[in-house]
Amino acid sequence: MRIARFSIDGNVAFGAVEGDKPDELVLDIIKGIPFADFELSGTKVPVSKVRLLPPVLPNKVVAFGRNYAEHAKELGNEVPDTPFAFFKPSTSVIGPGAEIQYPGFSEELHHEAELAVVIGRMCREVPRERVKDVVFGYTAANDVTARDVQKREKQWARAKGFDTSCPLGPWVETDLSLEQASDLTIQCTVNGQQRQLGRTSQMITSIEDLIVNISEAMTLLPGDVILTGTPEGVGPLSVGDEVAVSIEGIGTLTNKVVKRG
Amino acid sequence: MRIARFSIDGNVAFGAVEGDKPDELVLDIIKGIPFADFELSGTKVPVSKVRLLPPVLPNKVVAFGRNYAEHAKELGNEVPDTPFAFFKPSTSVIGPGAEIQYPGFSEELHHEAELAVVIGRMCREVPRERVKDVVFGYTAANDVTARDVQKREKQWARAKGFDTSCPLGPWVETDLSLEQASDLTIQCTVNGQQRQLGRTSQMITSIEDLIVNISEAMTLLPGDVILTGTPEGVGPLSVGDEVAVSIEGIGTLTNKVVKRG
Repeated sequence: MRIARFSIDGNVAFGAVEGDKPDELVLDIIKGIPFADFELSGTKVPVSKVRLLPPVLPNKVVAFGRNYAEHAKELGNEVPDTPFAFFKPSTSVIGPGAEIQYPGFSEELHHEAELAVVIGRMCREVPRERVKDVVFGYTAANDVTARDVQKREKQWARAKGFDTSCPLGPWVETDLSLEQASDLTIQCTVNGQQRQLGRTSQMITSIEDLIVNISEAMTLLPGDVILTGTPEGVGPLSVGDEVAVSIEGIGTLTNKVVKRG
Repeated sequence: MRIARFSIDGNVAFGAVEGDKPDELVLDIIKGIPFADFELSGTKVPVSKVRLLPPVLPNKVVAFGRNYAEHAKELGNEVPDTPFAFFKPSTSVIGPGAEIQYPGFSEELHHEAELAVVIGRMCREVPRERVKDVVFGYTAANDVTARDVQKREKQWARAKGFDTSCPLGPWVETDLSLEQASDLTIQCTVNGQQRQLGRTSQMITSIEDLIVNISEAMTLLPGDVILTGTPEGVGPLSVGDEVAVSIEGIGTLTNKVVKRG
C-alpha cells in the first residue's frame, strides 16, 4: 500500500494511494493513524485536489554518510570501515512539491538522492532478524547538503540540517520486503537530466545492519526516518532547478529550488 | 522564576519553584504552558513529593563543540575558527535524578557539564540584538559522550545521541539576563569530587553568536535547547557514579550512572 499524508480544506489526513497513471491517482482517506490500527474509509479524493505533505512527521531523521563506495570516492573521501550517522532535524523536513529554499549562508547546495526507511514501531537494540518487524515502509529522500559549509564545519548540523534540507515523499510504500528494498534503482534528475543513478544493492552497509547499528544506541519511534546514503553523482543545485528523486517501486519526489525569502 | 516540570499522580505539570533550602522547595503549579500566557495557580506541592522531569521536552537539542579553548586542547584538538554544531535527539533527554544508562557499545563514557539555553519562541535568522527576545531561560546540561565511539565515528549521532545522554535540569531559570548568563561559574563533580570548573565567560563564541549562527540555518522552536560547550576537565564516568552539574544562579543537576539493563 502507498500511504500519503495530505492537507485538504485545512485538515491533515492520511490516505491510501490508488491508481497507476500520475494524473489519475486517488486517495482513499484513512481512518485512524497508519502506525496503529486503521481502516480505509472508502471516501476518495483525487490527488490533484489536495496538497501532499511529508508522508511522516519524524521525531528524528537519522542519516548515514558514505554508504556507497563510489560516492565516497567522488568527494575524495575514504570509504569508512564502519557506518557513521548524523541527524537531520524535524524542522528540515518538507514534502513532495514543496520548495527547497536556498539558504543565504551557502553558495554550493548539492542534491543527494536516498532511499528512506520509515520506522513503524518503538524499538531499541533491534536484532538483525527482527529488523523487518520494525520497518513500516519506504519512501524517497533528498539529503540536500550545503557542501561548502560541510567542508568548513566538523559536524554537519548546519550543512545538512537547515530548513527545507530534507524533502521526503511522495508517499510511504509499505508492500516492499527488505529483500526488495535492498535492490532498487535509485535515480536523481535535475531539470530532467540524469545526475545520479545507482542501485540500493550497492550500499556498503545493508538496511538491516544500519538499523541494528543505530538502534544499538537509541530508541527509534514510529515515524522516525533512516536515510541510507547516496550513490555517486551528487552535484550542484541552483535557484530555479527542479530536482527529482525516483526510486523503483516507490515513486518520484520532486522539489523546486527557490531563493530563501 | 525557576520553572520545573514534574509528574504527580500520573499527571505532568509545570510549576514555579519557591524556597531556598534544598529540602524545603515547593512548586506552585502553573496553569497554562510556560511558553505562552500562564499564571500561578496558588496550589502548592513540595518538590520532595513529586518526580522532577526534564524541564522542557525539546523538539531538538543543538550542541556546540569545542567552545572552551582549554577543553579543546585537553582532548588534543585544535580550537576551531568557527563554531560547529551537532544534534542530540529528544530521545536522549532525561531529567534530574533520572539514571544515565551506560550503553553496551561504549567503554568510555565521559561527563561534559554545559550551560543550556532554552528557546522561548519560534524564530529564524535572529539578529544579534534580538537574541535576548528569543531566550526563555537557562538550565544545566550534561552532554554525556561515548568518547571511544566519538573517536571512531566521523559524525557523533551515536556517540552523543544515545538514550539518556542528555540530562537537563533541574529547572529553567528565567530571571537571568544574557549578560548574567555569560559570566557564571559552571562545575561538575563526580561522587562529590570536583572534575570540571570554569566560567561561561570563557566561551569562545558567545551565547548571542551561537544563536545567530544556528538560527541562520534553521528554525528554532519553543522548548528547543542550545548546549553551549563544556569547560576543561572532562573525564570518565563509571557505573555507580553520581555526577552533578552545578551552575551558579541556576542549580544542580544530579544523575546516577547505571548499567543499561
